[in-house]
Amino acid sequence: MENVFTANMRIKRINDDRAEDADDQLVIEEPLEIHLQHGNADNRVQKSISVTMRTPGHDMELAAGFLFTEGIIMSSNDILFIEQESTDSNRILFALQDNVDPGLQKTERNFYTTSSCGVCGKSSIEAIKTVSVYKNEEKSILLKTELFYTIQENLKTRQAIFESTGGIHASALFGLDGTFIMLREDVGRHNALDKLIGAFLLNDELPQTNTVLLLSGRASFELIQKASMAGIKVVAAVGAPSSLAVELARECNITLVGFLRNERFNIYSGEERIIL
Amino acid sequence: MENVFTANMRIKRINDDRAEDADDQLVIEEPLEIHLQHGNADNRVQKSISVTMRTPGHDMELAAGFLFTEGIIMSSNDILFIEQESTDSNRILFALQDNVDPGLQKTERNFYTTSSCGVCGKSSIEAIKTVSVYKNEEKSILLKTELFYTIQENLKTRQAIFESTGGIHASALFGLDGTFIMLREDVGRHNALDKLIGAFLLNDELPQTNTVLLLSGRASFELIQKASMAGIKVVAAVGAPSSLAVELARECNITLVGFLRNERFNIYSGEERIIL
Repeated sequence: MENVFTANMRIKRINDDRAEDADDQLVIEEPLEIHLQHGNADNRVQKSISVTMRTPGHDMELAAGFLFTEGIIMSSNDILFIEQESTDSNRILFALQDNVDPGLQKTERNFYTTSSCGVCGKSSIEAIKTVSVYKNEEKSILLKTELFYTIQENLKTRQAIFESTGGIHASALFGLDGTFIMLREDVGRHNALDKLIGAFLLNDELPQTNTVLLLSGRASFELIQKASMAGIKVVAAVGAPSSLAVELARECNITLVGFLRNERFNIYSGEERIIL
Repeated sequence: MENVFTANMRIKRINDDRAEDADDQLVIEEPLEIHLQHGNADNRVQKSISVTMRTPGHDMELAAGFLFTEGIIMSSNDILFIEQESTDSNRILFALQDNVDPGLQKTERNFYTTSSCGVCGKSSIEAIKTVSVYKNEEKSILLKTELFYTIQENLKTRQAIFESTGGIHASALFGLDGTFIMLREDVGRHNALDKLIGAFLLNDELPQTNTVLLLSGRASFELIQKASMAGIKVVAAVGAPSSLAVELARECNITLVGFLRNERFNIYSGEERIIL
């Protein structure tokens, strides 16, 4: 089955020293370049600000989510237009409304990204934490442990066609009752989450405070930061978190669950939201 | 066991709805900022050029490998000094010899990276491929399939103490006869490879043409590009390659093996170097 995420390639398969020619499905990885246009009616400037290695598809959402989680835009109101010549183009033109200051000079961002970026372009370590615009929008969240088993099973089913590639990450959003809301996939875990957050940004549906974010792999600092920017309060990861991911989750009052597999998981922060 | 790569953290473990307090080992993730100093005796300038999320340790090798695989330095001769205040400092000062041009303006690199970067800072898609300085230094390489099984087993043994974290990537170099040469680990797969390549650069032992590079996870475009920069001709990955990784390997005449597990693997390019 051919689809937009994978490419077929002719390979040689070795199994216990027997060699055979075979077709293999690979996840597609291609560069996406984001050009940012900003200024005012008298003086508009345009600059290539980012090259990220991504799986094509949902590129406008990716660009919107990236600029939002990096703190360059605050809402869809900051966007004048987003232009991509065709859906298979590797170039996005992202134009800001007049007088929206992308803060590129101020924060010395000049950032450049790859498939797994998120703290790109901060020129001092102190500046790596981008601050969320959403405050205290949470109603009290209380989750049963079964919810986590349910959403992990749900994601496994939805990812089935990509298991053959073994190379694609997913970010999925669920309601507090386990209802599936949206899934985005990419060769880069940060891109998958940027695509997800960008989709809600473009629909004016941020913050996503009363939802659960499920990550198909590991939870790094950057992923928790992006979740925080989108107002997400509960993050579950199939893989391991890093030390800094846990520290940030605790600081931002995010419930972080890791190693979610086979009716088991670890709670790294915010256990008061989970009924034990 | 406490070590430099992991941190202990108090967590709640949920197993089939039973909750218990537990200690957990997490891979450490912290930002490393690289300041580049260059110019000549009359005018030296210094600039923060990169913040990467990495696991502390071998930071000078990481910086050297990163600048080399990005094409900023060509050999250890370009380095005046590398300074880190202490081994747990998150800041590296990397000084170039007088008149070594880092090409930051020319290529508009101004790059910024995170834990998984490699093509960072190229401001046009056409420029993402950095060209290796090594040409035609290969003696004819011929490998038995057993070699791949051997090195995968070897890496598994060496990575044993990190299995508990579930969050660390490894890059390991082996001789053509399977002899272990060097291992580097990091929360970011690109950092692990930069640390490995940087170590050989600082010892004036590049190119590493007659060796096999083993990657503990997936093979992305950036990893193949870094291997190419170091003159490496054979790359084996435990995980899946991306489409662009395979294309680059084929273009650069690199033998690329993927899904190397349990006496099985796939050959994606350069099968003429493997005896079938």
